[in-house]
Amino acid sequence: MSTISEKIFSRAAGKEAKANDFVIADIDYAMAHDGTSILAVRSFRQMEVEKVWDPSRIVIPFDHLAPANSDTTAGLQKDIRGWVRQQGINNFYDIGNGICHQVLPEKGFAMPGKLIVGADSHSCTYGAFGAFGTGVGATDMAEIFASGKLWFRVPESIKVAAEGKMGERVYAKDLTLKIIGEVTASGATYKAVEFYGNAIEGLSMAGRMTLSNMAIEMGAKAGIVPPDATTFEYLKDRAVSDYEPVYSDEDADYVAEYHIDVNSLEPQVACPHEVDNVCGVSEIAGKKLDQAFIGTCTNGRLEDLEAAAEVLEGNEVAVRTIIIPASRQIMKEAARKGLIEIFLDAGATMGTPGCGPCLGGHMGVIGEGEVCISTANRNFRGRMGTGGYIYLASPATVAASAIKGEIADPRNV
Amino acid sequence: MSTISEKIFSRAAGKEAKANDFVIADIDYAMAHDGTSILAVRSFRQMEVEKVWDPSRIVIPFDHLAPANSDTTAGLQKDIRGWVRQQGINNFYDIGNGICHQVLPEKGFAMPGKLIVGADSHSCTYGAFGAFGTGVGATDMAEIFASGKLWFRVPESIKVAAEGKMGERVYAKDLTLKIIGEVTASGATYKAVEFYGNAIEGLSMAGRMTLSNMAIEMGAKAGIVPPDATTFEYLKDRAVSDYEPVYSDEDADYVAEYHIDVNSLEPQVACPHEVDNVCGVSEIAGKKLDQAFIGTCTNGRLEDLEAAAEVLEGNEVAVRTIIIPASRQIMKEAARKGLIEIFLDAGATMGTPGCGPCLGGHMGVIGEGEVCISTANRNFRGRMGTGGYIYLASPATVAASAIKGEIADPRNV
Repeated sequence: MSTISEKIFSRAAGKEAKANDFVIADIDYAMAHDGTSILAVRSFRQMEVEKVWDPSRIVIPFDHLAPANSDTTAGLQKDIRGWVRQQGINNFYDIGNGICHQVLPEKGFAMPGKLIVGADSHSCTYGAFGAFGTGVGATDMAEIFASGKLWFRVPESIKVAAEGKMGERVYAKDLTLKIIGEVTASGATYKAVEFYGNAIEGLSMAGRMTLSNMAIEMGAKAGIVPPDATTFEYLKDRAVSDYEPVYSDEDADYVAEYHIDVNSLEPQVACPHEVDNVCGVSEIAGKKLDQAFIGTCTNGRLEDLEAAAEVLEGNEVAVRTIIIPASRQIMKEAARKGLIEIFLDAGATMGTPGCGPCLGGHMGVIGEGEVCISTANRNFRGRMGTGGYIYLASPATVAASAIKGEIADPRNV
Repeated sequence: MSTISEKIFSRAAGKEAKANDFVIADIDYAMAHDGTSILAVRSFRQMEVEKVWDPSRIVIPFDHLAPANSDTTAGLQKDIRGWVRQQGINNFYDIGNGICHQVLPEKGFAMPGKLIVGADSHSCTYGAFGAFGTGVGATDMAEIFASGKLWFRVPESIKVAAEGKMGERVYAKDLTLKIIGEVTASGATYKAVEFYGNAIEGLSMAGRMTLSNMAIEMGAKAGIVPPDATTFEYLKDRAVSDYEPVYSDEDADYVAEYHIDVNSLEPQVACPHEVDNVCGVSEIAGKKLDQAFIGTCTNGRLEDLEAAAEVLEGNEVAVRTIIIPASRQIMKEAARKGLIEIFLDAGATMGTPGCGPCLGGHMGVIGEGEVCISTANRNFRGRMGTGGYIYLASPATVAASAIKGEIADPRNV
């Protein structure tokens, strides 16, 4: 009678672990990007430990301010490159490889049953593969670098079941926003969310990653999709190690359950400045925009770009529109499939694979009072630029809105 | 017995103008980008003139820090967008359209015989079309915005003749660096350089733009290629107005003449920290690199990308390599021709059309002590990042060097 999380922590702690137990767990894979690795490495140096516990289990992608946007960033990145070399960390992905949460799955690090910890809040993305993926602070990451272990309170679990068939131009992102609207931004704080139901089972890996990615936006410690044939197919010829899928027992304990009917779900929009300020697109359609942004660890994957291209093809954008594939691999496939031509023909701007303007650091920061519709996961005040307004939606909704210059329903394009 | 410059200034001033005369000239087209327009507009506002002299003759492309890299940039760009709308300036090219010196030619503003002034030092690029293109400061640009006129001292002229046939993988950039090495960085100060000879006549428009672009690196006020069939072909269906080609008289006065034999020219490299510190690639081959950069108003055109792709195809880069097409149009053609796939397959990173890291503002700033080989036009100390070292070369040389991780001769790949 255990949840997925309890089973993963039981294995990782080497003893049976139940919700609310405190455990010391062995980390399977540890990730830090350019933004957090510098802090983790500084703390690690203070510990005066010479070598990391296992270089093959540490993954360092550069994505947040990559390529470097300033002297300071360039200097910090140079420092980390030197440290990575010195420590013999081969899983280093320099600028241009893409966003950490895309790179780890692509390279086969996100696997069922694993405990994967990242120094980034959206490390819950790996839950899409049936892993327990979670984010920690940089000093915790230093401890992992040194020992390969970290303490946890095993989370209680929440069950979210989504049933039904989503209509035309309704996507995983719409379902995700709907769920967040129901659960609220703090409704799953320090809980592990498990996703069930035929609407979840029907999602591609890309869709599941969108869903798990935003679990933290409900406060969740993890957002886990039970692995199935879709998962195993993705991992074939990709997984970097053996893995054992883990499933909750039928009589496992859940502290809450949510049921979502997706049959009549319309495209959703999260309005400023809270991610759970969610409504149907029809309620907010017509809101004037200054910028549109398609990309990020939430929605920068190939099927996201395909959904956007389907809407943009033969149309022209009415506002500045930035499209950033989540990884080099995705950009390559997008180029091969002619999507980049479609985007450029529509007047959109392509950016370097990485986080882009999502965090307000470069590549499309918005000005005071400006309004951006984005496929990202956060619309906090100031996230993409001080004084800006961010609406979150699916790639199709963002594309439709870019064409109109105002928030628009992609089913009407 | 007049030079091209004297003839252009005679027309623009409405009276015969000879070298060293002071004239007030009518400006045909005026350009300011995001970096300088903000200063020009501030000065314009202080003049308390309500409307610009002629909105159809003002061109504003956003390229330097585009998309916006900070709150400050986002705010300034927002301000200029508002001013452009208020002034009825339709020739506004927002983020992602590309570099000013590429956008103006592409859109047909660079034409023979015209006087084109830009608030950017590389406005001499328009000389490739037989125009007098030159850079001014932002306050001078404000005066042009208000009156359409500016004072000039008509420059004396220098003749540079290049004869012969360039070998395999020797390009306009190599010829340009060779010329700068001969003339020196201050050798043409306040002069107009006119380019002649069969090696110049054989250059495509892209090659001529590389050449004229770097005239300022010899101190020149302008760098002019006499227009010919190649020029007229480029301008067909593109020129925004009628134009009248202008040529120097046979007995025109030149204060200096240079003759370059290109037959045995090897690929050239300008070494840190002076642009005229030029040598053949064989003299510097083996120098270890941290970064390679292909792009800019000097060498971000389609044929530059094609030259790079020819070298990169089937190879893998050994250092981080950033490739940025000079305009959206060029990126579109590069996508169509499969070049973007070649670059990404080789492990390079694509960036948003614009100036990229050339000016050290974002998208690939180099760290202290880092070494970058670049297709740009400037290798001043600190240009791409404080404490960095910049080597300038052709796209093929940069591509070959990226593969080796050290400066390399593209003829050996």
